[in-house]
Amino acid sequence: MIYDIAINNCLCFVDDSFINANVGIEGNKIKYVGKQNVKGDIEFNEKAVLIPALFNAHTHVAMSLFRGYAEDMPLMKWLKDKIWKVEKKLKPKDIYWGTMLGITEMIKSGIGSFSDLYIYMDEVAKAVGESGIRAVLCYGMADRGEEERAKKELEIGEEFVRKWNNEFNGRVKAIFGPHAPYTCSPEFLKKVRERAKEVKSIVHIHVSETQWEVEEIKKRYGDTPVNMLERIGFLDSDTVIAHAVWLSDEEIKVLKKRNVSVVHCPVSNLKLSSGIARVRDMIKSGINVALGTDGAASNNSYNLFQEMKFTSLLQKIKYMRADAIKSIDVLKMAVKNGYKAYGINGGEIKPEKLADIAIIDVKVANFYPLYSIENSLVYSAYGSEVTHLIIDGKVVMEEREILTFDEEKVFDKVEKIKEKFI
Amino acid sequence: MIYDIAINNCLCFVDDSFINANVGIEGNKIKYVGKQNVKGDIEFNEKAVLIPALFNAHTHVAMSLFRGYAEDMPLMKWLKDKIWKVEKKLKPKDIYWGTMLGITEMIKSGIGSFSDLYIYMDEVAKAVGESGIRAVLCYGMADRGEEERAKKELEIGEEFVRKWNNEFNGRVKAIFGPHAPYTCSPEFLKKVRERAKEVKSIVHIHVSETQWEVEEIKKRYGDTPVNMLERIGFLDSDTVIAHAVWLSDEEIKVLKKRNVSVVHCPVSNLKLSSGIARVRDMIKSGINVALGTDGAASNNSYNLFQEMKFTSLLQKIKYMRADAIKSIDVLKMAVKNGYKAYGINGGEIKPEKLADIAIIDVKVANFYPLYSIENSLVYSAYGSEVTHLIIDGKVVMEEREILTFDEEKVFDKVEKIKEKFI
Repeated sequence: MIYDIAINNCLCFVDDSFINANVGIEGNKIKYVGKQNVKGDIEFNEKAVLIPALFNAHTHVAMSLFRGYAEDMPLMKWLKDKIWKVEKKLKPKDIYWGTMLGITEMIKSGIGSFSDLYIYMDEVAKAVGESGIRAVLCYGMADRGEEERAKKELEIGEEFVRKWNNEFNGRVKAIFGPHAPYTCSPEFLKKVRERAKEVKSIVHIHVSETQWEVEEIKKRYGDTPVNMLERIGFLDSDTVIAHAVWLSDEEIKVLKKRNVSVVHCPVSNLKLSSGIARVRDMIKSGINVALGTDGAASNNSYNLFQEMKFTSLLQKIKYMRADAIKSIDVLKMAVKNGYKAYGINGGEIKPEKLADIAIIDVKVANFYPLYSIENSLVYSAYGSEVTHLIIDGKVVMEEREILTFDEEKVFDKVEKIKEKFI
Repeated sequence: MIYDIAINNCLCFVDDSFINANVGIEGNKIKYVGKQNVKGDIEFNEKAVLIPALFNAHTHVAMSLFRGYAEDMPLMKWLKDKIWKVEKKLKPKDIYWGTMLGITEMIKSGIGSFSDLYIYMDEVAKAVGESGIRAVLCYGMADRGEEERAKKELEIGEEFVRKWNNEFNGRVKAIFGPHAPYTCSPEFLKKVRERAKEVKSIVHIHVSETQWEVEEIKKRYGDTPVNMLERIGFLDSDTVIAHAVWLSDEEIKVLKKRNVSVVHCPVSNLKLSSGIARVRDMIKSGINVALGTDGAASNNSYNLFQEMKFTSLLQKIKYMRADAIKSIDVLKMAVKNGYKAYGINGGEIKPEKLADIAIIDVKVANFYPLYSIENSLVYSAYGSEVTHLIIDGKVVMEEREILTFDEEKVFDKVEKIKEKFI
């Protein structure tokens, strides 16, 4: 048997640990994982580590355009005085190039899938198509309590799902994305929920990012954000909430009961001084917690290796116990739980799973000596150790070089776009 | 004029901001910084960013051997059950290779100087000599209240200073390193202080790393660590204290009054769940705060770009204000304040300063678009963007390749040494 791609002599992430194995890929699926040497049209013999391509489960990729533009400001002031102002200057083509820039950084650091909620999403979808990456995309809807606006926003959101869902051999999954409980009315959220059920779509939303939001929702509806969403029937196993920084014990129970997935964004939560989420408690209670970078303006990187290190270390300081969270659980947040949250058939190096794989060079100073691969990936990796990235069975990056588009051109374009913001 | 090394067309860190300039190096000093094009025996024309080589102001480099060996344990348990046990197995040659491994990672991420407190320091000094890096070295002395031991420890410490200070064209600065107030008696500390004054040496010590330490010192001496050290006359402008996590307002005032320098080690302080230091308050009060990685076992990286991002973000969450600390102040902690703390004539790209310079490639996805270099260095850099490193006027790394030793050999050696720990 000659596979499309054969990878021999690797340490592979299988069943939540690392084993010596060879991997055969056919079409967009992994077809063989085992001890037999495999042959392929493309062959890699890397003596490297293979993990599922990392999944950036919450971001606004085109915000790479604002990376470093406004620093050191609290969330609401940062949004109102800076980000919302420059966002008004954005043209669709800018979103395309900003997305391509973010995709460049993500591919370089091993991210094979991302979930994006933003505006001009057609451009994001096009960039996904051309770059070869996988993505869960939604138009960020906000009615702000206005009936006319609610109608229009839902139309745009639905049109986007109709137009793009399953495009590019299924690499795009288009879903519904109401922005947040403080920008969307309960009536609007209920309507979105209904439509999503009808077309079997996942719903992605920001929830409990800041203390301000919790107080605001209490003031408006007499309830915390999660409890308000539960009351209106919004929460379900097809709901993915981003941030979830400020949760009560009761809210954690509700999220578990409804099988809601949570996306933890540790760097962004620090950068905007939002807080440190109760990841240890969520994991202990059995909630599926994935990892996200959020937009580059509040990060400023699209690098899940960084997010892993921050996740682990912040939990230690939040609970003041160094055993607050295990490396293996943090690794799963980055390489497995995002796929689970969005119902995508990846996140494991196993036959019949999608061939979304990152190859990591461990022959670098920062990985020696190698006692434990999961510890090295979580605590020692910079992200630059990723040499190859396979997405949907295609080699998108080889020896750190992106094969699907010209990154220099992307850099030139964004430097020009920058001019109108400064 | 033909310089030894000429670097043209760079953005240089001069007087705490970045300007377009060309740089000429002669011997081990910077001789020219200005608009004129310069020529040299070696020429770089990089359109890159030039910063002073980063200064890792507190570490135990050879602990790279234990990177990933013991994870997720509190400080005292981690030291007693794990680290102190394997340290007993260490032979001098192991320290040499562990140090070479740590130096490899440091050079790769732009660190040109480090301050090391450990055992078998002759081996560390030899590694510094051979690798071309600069270092402040001290034997970590601890009398543990025993008179005989005190005598022996001071002898080893003094002998080390006599033997190595100013070796390798001054690249080694050998100083005194009493371990900590909880491992050294006040009498011993006073004796070290006197000897250091006599030979005009700097003294480096761990202080107030954990809440446990503060309580322990209070129990023993009825005073907090900084106040106890002040009472015995230990604190002065030639004292450099590592960690300083748990400080009262009064202790911050004492440190400022005595012009003590502090080394902040944010990642280590999280990893061992020690706490988050009051960097904002220390900087506001005018204390010189430098940055350190601590040993790799509690980090697990020797990468000051990571420490910069952690420093900035942790201060935001500690004070719950996103403007807690400015990027430029964080950058200075990494590239300037370490030189100041240890009295080394570097940390600025200026004539007559030591030619210790890192060249950084900003033409990478994670730096686009480039609004502000200091923001990019603090928030967006991985460390792998450093392409060249000049130390003491010599090119130690060119195009990411170390010129002074064979890194593959280092990797092979440490993999063999590892065997006796597992």
